[in-house]
Amino acid sequence: MSHSVTPLLGFEHMTQLGSASGYLDEIYEVVKALSLFEGFSVSEYSKFCEYMSCYGALRGDTILNEGTEGSFLVIVLTGQVDVMKNDGTGRRKLVTRVGPGGFLGEMSLIDGRQRFASCVATQPTDFAVLTRDKLNTIMLEYPRLANKVLLLVLQLMTSRLRDTTTRMLPTIVSEAI
Amino acid sequence: MSHSVTPLLGFEHMTQLGSASGYLDEIYEVVKALSLFEGFSVSEYSKFCEYMSCYGALRGDTILNEGTEGSFLVIVLTGQVDVMKNDGTGRRKLVTRVGPGGFLGEMSLIDGRQRFASCVATQPTDFAVLTRDKLNTIMLEYPRLANKVLLLVLQLMTSRLRDTTTRMLPTIVSEAI
Repeated sequence: MSHSVTPLLGFEHMTQLGSASGYLDEIYEVVKALSLFEGFSVSEYSKFCEYMSCYGALRGDTILNEGTEGSFLVIVLTGQVDVMKNDGTGRRKLVTRVGPGGFLGEMSLIDGRQRFASCVATQPTDFAVLTRDKLNTIMLEYPRLANKVLLLVLQLMTSRLRDTTTRMLPTIVSEAI
Repeated sequence: MSHSVTPLLGFEHMTQLGSASGYLDEIYEVVKALSLFEGFSVSEYSKFCEYMSCYGALRGDTILNEGTEGSFLVIVLTGQVDVMKNDGTGRRKLVTRVGPGGFLGEMSLIDGRQRFASCVATQPTDFAVLTRDKLNTIMLEYPRLANKVLLLVLQLMTSRLRDTTTRMLPTIVSEAI
């Protein structure tokens, strides 16, 4: 099957690094986290890589822009990205900082809503992109592999949810009865 | 195949309501949310229900207990459940309130860590339970159905993550540069 090499909208100015198949070692570091469930086999993570394209961002490049459309997930391979969100009063808060192996943009991939935060490279950053179209194709053609990809995203989101909910607790004034 | 009717550890005192196949309408209300991806067919959600058991909790019953082990997901069918978490200073905060169609316990299902919060029925509450063992079986036997189940959990977690991150923002003191 053929894999598109057209740059994603918004990434035209970035360096195109081709298929994630050129980044097998970096992607393996990401997918080996799947411990509680059956992990990726070598052929599965190599297949997974075929469905992703890679890009290179310079320091200061905006990878995702809060409030815009976009239905793809970003996996950071090298470098560092700041995740920032407008707090509703015009101030931009640093929500978190993501390094190699971190995911960005998974919320819009799943719910199709606008980007929740902006992601700016604070170092030269290479990253892989998984679009919803490619995810749908994996589900259609390799449903068992798709389960592992979805579990990987679920593990990431679980970790984020534990973290943000703990950080959110002080904002709750009332005690439970 | 046979489906276990042994009550889950911790639920021995609750009313056993049998397979979720008896709650097709309620479960359908939950699974029809899967709009951006291919949804559940009638036979798929009916199959999904076969893998879940249902229980009835009385007002005041603790369904999940913060800090304990447990690797199953709860889908609230009727009633209402308060989700409460110790804030680390001995105070119990009301994190959220969940009604019919809401999920509980998805974090431990995915990462195997201890229960993050306690869930107490504030009304007589019927609920369905999906264990990690059953989820693994679905992935093995019906991988395409498993894709949809995982997407459903992902959609729920995405919604929670948008909500808690927004609520957490005021706790971030420093502005991004």
